[in-house]
Amino acid sequence: MSPSFTKSHELFARAARVMPQGIYGHFTPVFTVPGSYPYFMERARGSHFWDVDGNEYIDYLCAYGPMILGYANDKVDDAYRRQAGLGSCCSIATRLSVDLAERVTSTIDGADWVMFAKNGADVTSMALMLARGYRKRAKIVLAEEGYHGTQAWAGTSTVGITPADRADILMVPWGDLDALRETVAAWKGQIAGAMFTPYHHPVFADQKLPGPSFWAEVRKLCDENGIVLIIDDVRAGWRLDLKGSAHHFGFRPDMACYSKGMANGYAISMLVGAEKLRVTASKAYMTGSFWMNAPEMAVALVCLDEMERMNVAGVVRELGEALTRGLRELSEAHGLKVSITGPAALPFMKFANETNFLRSQLFCGECAGRGVFFHPHHNWFLSAAHTKEDIAKTLEAADAGFRAVKERFGD
Amino acid sequence: MSPSFTKSHELFARAARVMPQGIYGHFTPVFTVPGSYPYFMERARGSHFWDVDGNEYIDYLCAYGPMILGYANDKVDDAYRRQAGLGSCCSIATRLSVDLAERVTSTIDGADWVMFAKNGADVTSMALMLARGYRKRAKIVLAEEGYHGTQAWAGTSTVGITPADRADILMVPWGDLDALRETVAAWKGQIAGAMFTPYHHPVFADQKLPGPSFWAEVRKLCDENGIVLIIDDVRAGWRLDLKGSAHHFGFRPDMACYSKGMANGYAISMLVGAEKLRVTASKAYMTGSFWMNAPEMAVALVCLDEMERMNVAGVVRELGEALTRGLRELSEAHGLKVSITGPAALPFMKFANETNFLRSQLFCGECAGRGVFFHPHHNWFLSAAHTKEDIAKTLEAADAGFRAVKERFGD
Repeated sequence: MSPSFTKSHELFARAARVMPQGIYGHFTPVFTVPGSYPYFMERARGSHFWDVDGNEYIDYLCAYGPMILGYANDKVDDAYRRQAGLGSCCSIATRLSVDLAERVTSTIDGADWVMFAKNGADVTSMALMLARGYRKRAKIVLAEEGYHGTQAWAGTSTVGITPADRADILMVPWGDLDALRETVAAWKGQIAGAMFTPYHHPVFADQKLPGPSFWAEVRKLCDENGIVLIIDDVRAGWRLDLKGSAHHFGFRPDMACYSKGMANGYAISMLVGAEKLRVTASKAYMTGSFWMNAPEMAVALVCLDEMERMNVAGVVRELGEALTRGLRELSEAHGLKVSITGPAALPFMKFANETNFLRSQLFCGECAGRGVFFHPHHNWFLSAAHTKEDIAKTLEAADAGFRAVKERFGD
Repeated sequence: MSPSFTKSHELFARAARVMPQGIYGHFTPVFTVPGSYPYFMERARGSHFWDVDGNEYIDYLCAYGPMILGYANDKVDDAYRRQAGLGSCCSIATRLSVDLAERVTSTIDGADWVMFAKNGADVTSMALMLARGYRKRAKIVLAEEGYHGTQAWAGTSTVGITPADRADILMVPWGDLDALRETVAAWKGQIAGAMFTPYHHPVFADQKLPGPSFWAEVRKLCDENGIVLIIDDVRAGWRLDLKGSAHHFGFRPDMACYSKGMANGYAISMLVGAEKLRVTASKAYMTGSFWMNAPEMAVALVCLDEMERMNVAGVVRELGEALTRGLRELSEAHGLKVSITGPAALPFMKFANETNFLRSQLFCGECAGRGVFFHPHHNWFLSAAHTKEDIAKTLEAADAGFRAVKERFGD
């Protein structure tokens, strides 16, 4: 079974002439399985998309997170259209900024104020500046292999990064309380903030959930040392708890960053913060041409309502549990060892007996050929648009994928 | 004549509880004329918007640039809707990225490749990283009072900025060739790039156009010293020349940044570059969740067609000339001295005999009360949706504005 990618490849040849790499960033097919994956999509609806060659996929990337209610969701898109007809980007703000800010601060645990932006990276950068401005200190603690965007300070890029870009960044392994304590002691009085994801979701490695007392200990350490605790909930947000992933894990950060799922793929992000940071946030000047665009805010209001009404966090957890349970059973039946880590709604699967991801690539390529879009090195995402029928079809494809791995590798 | 802002003020009281400053960034009413300006808009169409109290305005801010074809433009919005129905933010790119990249590289002078993002600030930051990566040098030259966003390196913010953030930034006055030559000599072999706007558009000060040989000299100096010349065309782009403001001024940069007008308010930006930077751009990892959203690209394609078909650069220049000619004549008739600087399509007016902008604020407040939305400290924007009737009505309001200034200040 090998689908045709003729049109994808024709388009890619054109793309390579006018864009670096043809397709850049996390969209580049280099990160999936070259030869086994489509490069361009034609249309998307619900949990499915169709590539330019007409191949259909059940999508477990969900646009790398943003799609949480399904592609081309009518309620969502209607909200956008209605507001776009009244105006979008204008010279002054709209009431929607107030409506959404009220909705957000009454929904997210510990959010006393909010600022909206476009990219997740906008708000992670803002959070760093506010922590530094509030504490009048320069150092920031981040986790190794954490992801907060591709800005110069974030450590994702390597091209064109200067020593100054990361001069005030201190790194600790995610979840390593001893390392964090040592770093805090070594830089006593110099650390403005610590930014972590609510659980560890690296690429190319198992995800890690926090131990039962981890966040309480981090919170305590930050409080004792006047360190602003920032949670980057851009990836995980909305799939664990409508009140925020920190609420899900039982602690309260000083600031938290959201984007992706909050408007089902429309471009919006936000930074929420505790009262103590409000004055600093009021003094800072942070803005962007499209940050007050109203239709994205109308969409976010509808998405919040829908996510609450449908209990999306519960829905995606159950779907994720059905998927991961099925994958575990199938891999065992084939005599293969997989590790599936992280929350069920955002699972990461790897073959436990390899580090080169060759099995993962074969497995994902075989699944793609059968209409199931997984990623070999990045966590997957469930959405409220996935169905039990999707899961059943997916497990059929996975059965073939595991069989191919068994035949090629033996274990 | 004093319009009611009751609903604006009610909304602002709510906003102040849930957002820092109530309204933040360049949207904050602090930057216009407190008490004389609306805070929230209800709807917008063409060159007009209506605030939440029902007051109507002819808008010369154009959303600070993005609105170039008119608010709620049907052709533009239809393009968005059509593509949104097929899919927006997805797990892989769409053919629209290729179509738009081909259109852009065949339109913008010197653009051999393009990368799309969301904010203007995304692409100015990317340009710095690519210049540094290409030259393997750290220093960047910027102009004093230049604007490239509110990122830590850009010098706009003051809160939470560390010495390291701007350690490799060198500042020269915009347009000062001698200062630039001195800086280049002082840091010989250490400067990766220089980023300038195509003409100088500070706030609170006259705009400056380049002298006849300025850009040729800068280009020569950069070439002799291996400095990557970057033009930030985010604000001015599309209003001077469809091929780019650099083309308008007769030179070719190595990279150029665009956003604002390219999709009439929909959130998209782009970095274009010369062939020599392609490999560096291909090695860099720069991405964002919404950077491949297809509807914004569909809109940009329609906007480029419309801007070309209508000769928008010519249209906004003529409208700007009519407006600024009228303002000059009226101010003279009232015995007032104004300086109107910069391109006619993006004019800045101040009273030549003051530096505190009190006359400007009174003038703009009086105009706002008469349905004309100017900004006292920031350049204005013309759009293709403005009409001769708009200009005539605007000049009537301006006549009253100048009269009020004359009565209050005498000169």
